[in-house]
Amino acid sequence: MSKDAGSGRDMWGGHFEAGPAPLMEQINASIDFDKRLWAQDIAGSMAHARMLAAQGIVLEADRDAILEGLAQVHEEIAEGQFHFERSLEDIHLNIEARLTELVGEPGRRLHTGRSRNDQVALDMKLWTREAMDRADARLAELQKVLLHRAEEHAATVMPGFTHLQAAQPVTFGHHLMAYVEMFGRDRSRFQDARRRLNECPLGAAALAGTSFPIDRDATAAELGFERPTANSIDSVSDRDFALDYLASAAICAVHLSRLAEELVLWSTPQFGFVRMSEDFTSGSSIMPQKRNPDAAELVRGKSGRVMGHLQALLITLKGLPLAYSKDMQEDKEGLFDAVDTLELCLAAAAAMLLGMKANPERMKEAAGVGFTIATDLADWMVRVKNVSFREAHGIAARAVKRAEERGCGLEALTLAELQAIDPRIDEAVFGVLGVERSVESRMSHGGTAPERVRQAVAAARSRYFPEAPAAGEAGA
Amino acid sequence: MSKDAGSGRDMWGGHFEAGPAPLMEQINASIDFDKRLWAQDIAGSMAHARMLAAQGIVLEADRDAILEGLAQVHEEIAEGQFHFERSLEDIHLNIEARLTELVGEPGRRLHTGRSRNDQVALDMKLWTREAMDRADARLAELQKVLLHRAEEHAATVMPGFTHLQAAQPVTFGHHLMAYVEMFGRDRSRFQDARRRLNECPLGAAALAGTSFPIDRDATAAELGFERPTANSIDSVSDRDFALDYLASAAICAVHLSRLAEELVLWSTPQFGFVRMSEDFTSGSSIMPQKRNPDAAELVRGKSGRVMGHLQALLITLKGLPLAYSKDMQEDKEGLFDAVDTLELCLAAAAAMLLGMKANPERMKEAAGVGFTIATDLADWMVRVKNVSFREAHGIAARAVKRAEERGCGLEALTLAELQAIDPRIDEAVFGVLGVERSVESRMSHGGTAPERVRQAVAAARSRYFPEAPAAGEAGA
Amino acid sequence: MSKDAGSGRDMWGGHFEAGPAPLMEQINASIDFDKRLWAQDIAGSMAHARMLAAQGIVLEADRDAILEGLAQVHEEIAEGQFHFERSLEDIHLNIEARLTELVGEPGRRLHTGRSRNDQVALDMKLWTREAMDRADARLAELQKVLLHRAEEHAATVMPGFTHLQAAQPVTFGHHLMAYVEMFGRDRSRFQDARRRLNECPLGAAALAGTSFPIDRDATAAELGFERPTANSIDSVSDRDFALDYLASAAICAVHLSRLAEELVLWSTPQFGFVRMSEDFTSGSSIMPQKRNPDAAELVRGKSGRVMGHLQALLITLKGLPLAYSKDMQEDKEGLFDAVDTLELCLAAAAAMLLGMKANPERMKEAAGVGFTIATDLADWMVRVKNVSFREAHGIAARAVKRAEERGCGLEALTLAELQAIDPRIDEAVFGVLGVERSVESRMSHGGTAPERVRQAVAAARSRYFPEAPAAGEAGA
Amino acid sequence: MSKDAGSGRDMWGGHFEAGPAPLMEQINASIDFDKRLWAQDIAGSMAHARMLAAQGIVLEADRDAILEGLAQVHEEIAEGQFHFERSLEDIHLNIEARLTELVGEPGRRLHTGRSRNDQVALDMKLWTREAMDRADARLAELQKVLLHRAEEHAATVMPGFTHLQAAQPVTFGHHLMAYVEMFGRDRSRFQDARRRLNECPLGAAALAGTSFPIDRDATAAELGFERPTANSIDSVSDRDFALDYLASAAICAVHLSRLAEELVLWSTPQFGFVRMSEDFTSGSSIMPQKRNPDAAELVRGKSGRVMGHLQALLITLKGLPLAYSKDMQEDKEGLFDAVDTLELCLAAAAAMLLGMKANPERMKEAAGVGFTIATDLADWMVRVKNVSFREAHGIAARAVKRAEERGCGLEALTLAELQAIDPRIDEAVFGVLGVERSVESRMSHGGTAPERVRQAVAAARSRYFPEAPAAGEAGA
Repeated sequence: MSKDAGSGRDMWGGHFEAGPAPLMEQINASIDFDKRLWAQDIAGSMAHARMLAAQGIVLEADRDAILEGLAQVHEEIAEGQFHFERSLEDIHLNIEARLTELVGEPGRRLHTGRSRNDQVALDMKLWTREAMDRADARLAELQKVLLHRAEEHAATVMPGFTHLQAAQPVTFGHHLMAYVEMFGRDRSRFQDARRRLNECPLGAAALAGTSFPIDRDATAAELGFERPTANSIDSVSDRDFALDYLASAAICAVHLSRLAEELVLWSTPQFGFVRMSEDFTSGSSIMPQKRNPDAAELVRGKSGRVMGHLQALLITLKGLPLAYSKDMQEDKEGLFDAVDTLELCLAAAAAMLLGMKANPERMKEAAGVGFTIATDLADWMVRVKNVSFREAHGIAARAVKRAEERGCGLEALTLAELQAIDPRIDEAVFGVLGVERSVESRMSHGGTAPERVRQAVAAARSRYFPEAPAAGEAGA
Repeated sequence: MSKDAGSGRDMWGGHFEAGPAPLMEQINASIDFDKRLWAQDIAGSMAHARMLAAQGIVLEADRDAILEGLAQVHEEIAEGQFHFERSLEDIHLNIEARLTELVGEPGRRLHTGRSRNDQVALDMKLWTREAMDRADARLAELQKVLLHRAEEHAATVMPGFTHLQAAQPVTFGHHLMAYVEMFGRDRSRFQDARRRLNECPLGAAALAGTSFPIDRDATAAELGFERPTANSIDSVSDRDFALDYLASAAICAVHLSRLAEELVLWSTPQFGFVRMSEDFTSGSSIMPQKRNPDAAELVRGKSGRVMGHLQALLITLKGLPLAYSKDMQEDKEGLFDAVDTLELCLAAAAAMLLGMKANPERMKEAAGVGFTIATDLADWMVRVKNVSFREAHGIAARAVKRAEERGCGLEALTLAELQAIDPRIDEAVFGVLGVERSVESRMSHGGTAPERVRQAVAAARSRYFPEAPAAGEAGA
Repeated sequence: MSKDAGSGRDMWGGHFEAGPAPLMEQINASIDFDKRLWAQDIAGSMAHARMLAAQGIVLEADRDAILEGLAQVHEEIAEGQFHFERSLEDIHLNIEARLTELVGEPGRRLHTGRSRNDQVALDMKLWTREAMDRADARLAELQKVLLHRAEEHAATVMPGFTHLQAAQPVTFGHHLMAYVEMFGRDRSRFQDARRRLNECPLGAAALAGTSFPIDRDATAAELGFERPTANSIDSVSDRDFALDYLASAAICAVHLSRLAEELVLWSTPQFGFVRMSEDFTSGSSIMPQKRNPDAAELVRGKSGRVMGHLQALLITLKGLPLAYSKDMQEDKEGLFDAVDTLELCLAAAAAMLLGMKANPERMKEAAGVGFTIATDLADWMVRVKNVSFREAHGIAARAVKRAEERGCGLEALTLAELQAIDPRIDEAVFGVLGVERSVESRMSHGGTAPERVRQAVAAARSRYFPEAPAAGEAGA
Repeated sequence: MSKDAGSGRDMWGGHFEAGPAPLMEQINASIDFDKRLWAQDIAGSMAHARMLAAQGIVLEADRDAILEGLAQVHEEIAEGQFHFERSLEDIHLNIEARLTELVGEPGRRLHTGRSRNDQVALDMKLWTREAMDRADARLAELQKVLLHRAEEHAATVMPGFTHLQAAQPVTFGHHLMAYVEMFGRDRSRFQDARRRLNECPLGAAALAGTSFPIDRDATAAELGFERPTANSIDSVSDRDFALDYLASAAICAVHLSRLAEELVLWSTPQFGFVRMSEDFTSGSSIMPQKRNPDAAELVRGKSGRVMGHLQALLITLKGLPLAYSKDMQEDKEGLFDAVDTLELCLAAAAAMLLGMKANPERMKEAAGVGFTIATDLADWMVRVKNVSFREAHGIAARAVKRAEERGCGLEALTLAELQAIDPRIDEAVFGVLGVERSVESRMSHGGTAPERVRQAVAAARSRYFPEAPAAGEAGA
């Protein structure tokens, strides 16, 4: 069988530039990206050390040396003075090696009753939990901006679209409030994910648990977890929390892409509903009036990236036998990039909405194009004249046809003209015709009437920001 | 401009087999798949009719006619006597047309204050809510089977793997309990999704709300929702609930694929840990002893399908401006197939686990291969002899080397041999060597000790099935 | 160990509605969808039978009986008189069972020297090859429509967009020709995939080849393959051809989604560039002038579905050990649906383009908005006055500013005004200002000048349709 | 309307850490990743400058200054002395700014007749073309290693698996040759993609072409393209070439994941077919004999990442109107990472295969487990005794049953025992029983007989490496 290795070896020279060692380091070492977990790794080690001492597994003096050493490592990394070694593979070994260099023997006792398998699960959970909290906070900021602009435009009339064709007048504030709902659901998704994540894997050790008399409740509590995980094998093979973040982020990215699409559309000369601030557009050296909505396009485009990362991790985990497999090291880069991307897009969306100038005249004008108030006429016939829904639709359609022939809006038809269509129509009908009257009439719960929009803003503020001071909060 | 249409028309004959009408029907009509929503559509219409009458928008007599008519439609469909018409496009129009045929004028009043946009959102939410409940129930069934088998094998020793290499002995019951945790998280995911879904869109009408004095709280309550949705535009453009189902299903499919992979592996002659029941394997006409684990392979393979459906809907919704766009009709087929697939896989997984025969002898034998108890020797040195973790590892490594030379297990080394490696070792060490002693020693919370596994089974039963009778529940 | 099965069995009654057998049939049987392969399965069997006889492996009489029997099965299925049995699992066994029923003993000899593994690979390849040919043909139809409309609108001026902001005038014909290029690349992708697919797996048998003296070149040739596959294991584990179809379809779906997005945009009142034919839009009973571009939206939305199917099969195949695993049965439904979806979308796109009415007035008007000809002024300064590119841009920017102040287009500035900006400007500049002059000047290869567009149409016709008669072919 | 901006501005202080400018730079600037295109950007600019001078658009002296300046920029970047500026956004402006700094006025003339839109398309195509060539070369290396190992193991018997259950004996060489086919298809996919890519977009300018008398054939030829692109709008909106790379890479990643899965499986103690070289495994400080196949697991896991990048770009491009949108800037990072990942995985796979030690004894032993030669007995009955295929299967099944009772292999049954099953069996049958005889008999084209495997190796060498010297090439 030595033939095998022998003949294989011969090919190295000819066919591979580098020998196997650099290749293995390149594919295997994770320090280049997992160093991002340094603060979590140190926090976990500190909690572990305290527990070991409290349980009598290490001496208090050893614990003190470990804590002091870790504090110093923390400082070195925070100040950019730590030298990360690729040959030490990952963040855990980099930190442990430096700790032992600093404090000697006690450093060698820190790893008692744990393994890199539960350690990396812990670090990732701590990091992801913070990312979930940040996502929630950024979404809240975005909601605040939306509430602010929605309040401002509670009565600004614009076309409500279906199929990108104007269907009925709505208010701009009402349209913006739709996004408050979407981002509210996104927040609840991240909050649910956080709750599901919040069990501490530390103490699962390699995969079987440990024979040391550790106190997992203590470390869990110190690190802010609700409880320790219930099964040691699951503890080291679970990456659901990363999937939960990614799935929540992908759905949020859908919402952001819809908003971004609208900003791109609305800022075309054809729509002209808004003008994006110069801060988030690029001009042209030659067409200075041109404003390319670059930031909005990027927010839209980056949704692909986030969805791609979700798929990547689902695929990587598919079909892996328990417990830890090295494939799982692939959980990090995609998640990190998805977190950075989402946070950037949320900030950019909020900033764009803040800086955007609306053009109420253009909006109102567009709201009336296409007889969008025909429904109002029909609803009036049903409501006031007790005509059936389907018959009322026929009457409205005839009125639209007449207005089209005359080249005017429905509200410009005379009473005589309307009565020629249906004699039951009387003067009172003019009380409902017109885009402003249309939106005012939509008083159903969740409807677009300006009064309802203002109520919705208030309700959203007290739902999403119960802690906030009563007055002037969002705009302050 | 007539040139345009004219010249285009000429090409029809030559280039397209069918004219435009059949092509449009083929791409546009949804009745072939959305008829699955019939029961939800009728339930929604009944609630709507009752509310309309209660609010004085339709007469009580009309309401009664509508309810009676809808009851008859319900019966016709349930009994397979309803004729679905493709020319009527979708389930809503099919049912309304039949209703009007049956009851006349009152049928024309049913659609007052609503539109197909809020109607389809309602139907889909009702349907998806039921699917979420079924997923939860099937997952609970699967957990019960796992608990049953885990209890049975609480003390059955098998190798615990990392990198698919035996790392430490665990118990089969403990391994199975890892899946109880995964499926428990899946249940919480579906439950969270259900809570997030549970706002009623009915009354959002086309997109702007309505001027009729409807009572959205009433319909929401009758249909089992917690409250009406807060924004009419969001109500008709939101498909988050479908994404939530799909994301939860995709993560659940990852778990199923891991379980299925293990069943495939374990039932190879090489592993031989389990024997799948004949019910879920296929044989060979010529090799009758061969058992291909077809069902497990399909459960594994179908994970791709579920993930694909998630991706498809994310993509379809990406970049859609508000409110309703026809693209959103693409939410149905993928979701329906994902639901069917997931439910089938959950049932198959439960049934396979029930029918599977474990082979404790093969498992135990494999558990000892590869000196998986070396950690136990090292931990003993740390625990009892106060050796540092890293030094203890060195001692264990030397013992492994000695055993390897002798071709025996660690537990077969003599005390003299062990003391030659480190004189601090004494007789007591034999109390920890051996795969059974190894698992018994992992008494940390969540660890693999049989006692802990039994506690974990009990804890899971009271966590996941608090309502169940105290004794014999799962196996009964 | 009998405990295992026993206790498991007990749970059946309580926890599962159906016994294992129906569950297994439901997850395992493929006949509901693989019956679509019936014609391919029969063609493959006929070729196999002829080869077996030619090689003396079966008697000529047996061959004749088999061929006659298969011809009858073919007729029965084609005429809808064949009864497919779920208990016979798949199309292969359904056909073989009926064959044996019809012809007896010879039917039992047909399977000599093959297995279901190479048989299903063959059937799928034959089916996919036809689908690739159909995709190519449908793409060619779509190109013809585009060429027809592009020729018609070779000189119709519209705005060329970047960032959805008008950047420079182009012609509508030129814009449409961009899609001819995209669909041309799609065709080449399907053609490449077909070439790569075109090796015959028949004769690989279960996975190892066979000891019968079969002639794989003969069956390959009869079935239109270029050669037999080179490796029997690869032959039964390869599904690259399905991935190749799906990847090509996904990229094509991107192109279709871009076209569909433009049709949706262009048919808004805000853009008003085109009016979709009524055939592919839906109206509103109340707003008769409203035209919702349903078909275009569905073409756009269905891109998600196709990409989802690609992803699903990639995932299903990921990590499968050789040779055949049952997971691979999941290759069918997604592929079938992707093929149907793509073909429907291609037909709908062609038909929509044929029926669409352009509005050249609106297009031309929009082409001039935003000083889109500023580049022309700058280029003229460079070309004629030898000003550097960057300096020329400064001059043009100042001219734009002046025109903006005056509220007119660049071409409406007087010579004096222009000379006040830069004295080198002379009368000749008016020869380049104006949207029509702008497009006429873009005479570079591939540029938008009407003359170039007409040449491009001719070049594309001879590139993509070399066989066509010289005159009037596409528009005839 | 000033209210809008005013009130919005007020929120900056309270709600956003940074002002809009840093946020915009962060989301918008691409220099951090597109600097990787520097060499392609310079090569494109050099070709453009030469053409401009040849066409008389710039002076020869200007061209010389430009070329000299670009050569210096090249040197500065190559030597790491170039300072990239984020405020200059991208690689194009960074290089142009430095060029103008170096050579003054002529630098301002370089951009004549082009724009950043065609420039970035060109750079990306040049870069991707090289990546395609590298992928092809790395795949060829991997094929060479496979051919080398396959030749070595042309007669090494192992089990051929279906459903991961041994089905028939094959040779290890034959199994490895299956991968030569897969990677051969991958090569053809990259080659097709390269051919499709190979049209030069330079000269499409912003999107409409240009009025300068440029010579696009000249630049295309100089840069190694087959021809200029045919349509200027398509030229700047097309990213098919990136999708083509990603789709090819995703399919290749499937193949790599299958190989990696097998390496992981084969190197378990349970299979024991191969032993991975220490170079690509990690040990355990305590279980020195443990070899975790880390590199193989990572190759398997990274397939998710590549598939994720494919999906991300498909999604990003979905629904984008023509021509350039900023979303398209998202084409780079995913592609770059996919290229790096694929190249790393290909190198690692080749190196792992080279260093892997096979264990023919374990393989052969496993090949006979499970009566994998039952087919051989049946085939012999058909071939020699003219029994029908289905009847022969019945005889073989009875022989298997008898051997199972006796606890021996089929080949150990006596003639009497066999004749008791079917009297037609005679002494000659022993000529086909046994795993080695089984593989030797599979002499069909593409079959597993060692002789065929050696022919296949030779055929693959002349197909894939026609240029190579006749002897000893792969192993030299």
